[in-house]
Amino acid sequence: MKKIVVVNDDGIHSPGLWVLYEAVKELGEIFIVTPLEPKSAIGLGLTLHKPIRIEEVVINGVRVYGINGTPSDAIHIARDVIVGNFDLLVSGVNIGANISMQDILASGTLGATFEAAFLGIPAIAFSADVPDSKRFLNENYRKLLINAIKSIVKYLVDNGFPENIDVINVNFPKEFRGIIRIARPARIRWRQCLEKRIDPRGRSYYWLYGEYIEPEPDTDAYVVLVEKGISITPLRLDLSVRSPDTYKGLEKLAKYLERNIGRHN
Amino acid sequence: MKKIVVVNDDGIHSPGLWVLYEAVKELGEIFIVTPLEPKSAIGLGLTLHKPIRIEEVVINGVRVYGINGTPSDAIHIARDVIVGNFDLLVSGVNIGANISMQDILASGTLGATFEAAFLGIPAIAFSADVPDSKRFLNENYRKLLINAIKSIVKYLVDNGFPENIDVINVNFPKEFRGIIRIARPARIRWRQCLEKRIDPRGRSYYWLYGEYIEPEPDTDAYVVLVEKGISITPLRLDLSVRSPDTYKGLEKLAKYLERNIGRHN
Repeated sequence: MKKIVVVNDDGIHSPGLWVLYEAVKELGEIFIVTPLEPKSAIGLGLTLHKPIRIEEVVINGVRVYGINGTPSDAIHIARDVIVGNFDLLVSGVNIGANISMQDILASGTLGATFEAAFLGIPAIAFSADVPDSKRFLNENYRKLLINAIKSIVKYLVDNGFPENIDVINVNFPKEFRGIIRIARPARIRWRQCLEKRIDPRGRSYYWLYGEYIEPEPDTDAYVVLVEKGISITPLRLDLSVRSPDTYKGLEKLAKYLERNIGRHN
Repeated sequence: MKKIVVVNDDGIHSPGLWVLYEAVKELGEIFIVTPLEPKSAIGLGLTLHKPIRIEEVVINGVRVYGINGTPSDAIHIARDVIVGNFDLLVSGVNIGANISMQDILASGTLGATFEAAFLGIPAIAFSADVPDSKRFLNENYRKLLINAIKSIVKYLVDNGFPENIDVINVNFPKEFRGIIRIARPARIRWRQCLEKRIDPRGRSYYWLYGEYIEPEPDTDAYVVLVEKGISITPLRLDLSVRSPDTYKGLEKLAKYLERNIGRHN
């Protein structure tokens, strides 16, 4: 039986965690190892400067290993303390879609999958384009998520994780219209804006918020926001530039730098 | 004259910030816009749930726009409030190297450059393989950093940023041995470990720490840690998998999922 670890960046009481647990509970030996408190938008943060503690709690009759750290910490606690080697990490279901590189690089839900991938453990992230957790309590939406997640995880457990992929990033639309697509990540999905306000003492402050931008076709953002479909996006943890021309241009910079440093030292 | 914004994730008093300022101050119109407090290992975090304030301070005779947010927030404050459109972001010099994808995806120094890149602004990250900021006060090391950074930024301002690159990630070794290389990022550089301890009240806790692993040749980590050279690494903000075979494998999963969801809904 495969060992599957479940993590969620919205804390142990997030309905998204329990939807995910419900979906995978019969597909392997399940371990919930997850931050006690919400740790959203923390990306790949690790807790290096303070001790991590583990608290065992039982929620809905299920044992949960809650930690006072980040989703990425949970991966190490799971492997080194609670589970030993495991076969698959599932992360989510996040409240809010994680579509486009802009979301993917900032997300705690994805951060946990990256941490697993660096250990060679296949990982799947699940996120839903919902504004808050109430939508997870809607019976039809809940059924859709559980069915879809169960199918995806079962398929990957039975057939193995595809080669050359570190992470599979799955996103659900607000209202599902029947489309399921393999899609590359968009580059951005938000235009970040600042709104200036004045506090009662006359001092200014700013709110940062994201404004919707039209997504480019054939991307995860387009599938989820425009087509209202489920997007499945394979990711590889590599930001390197692969064009030889690029390197040639930079070689000139390296030569220039060599001459300059030589001159001054 | 080019407008250059300087940011640093170790706070306004970090010697790394002042080394960077010293290096670029004659290369354009310089604006220091940066978190007041240290914000290390925060990745691409943005401050969305609380107001951001700006505090103008003068340090070493230089005006600094300090903010109570993250390095990524600083990019938006710079563009929308303080500077308007700008030509280049420089971030650093970080205390500690940012080599390998493992570091790059977790780093606040890189996070700020990603945020700029999403706005279409060229960005360069500078980091040094030093354990603390004392090394920046060593006269020879300081000179090396200032010379090298000045040369790199001057070259890129004069010749333009290379095409198809979002971010250039530069790392300095602890003791420079004369080598400068264009290098791709390693995948990982640390083996994360946990050490169990028992507190005076008998409860267990864990320290997470990174153990050195031998870097793969021809990577940023190899250049900096083994060859003791300066590594220059072009990055493109794209984690997509580009192999057609990968997509073919996943198309089968999409079909399987379509059949299953169809059945249950």
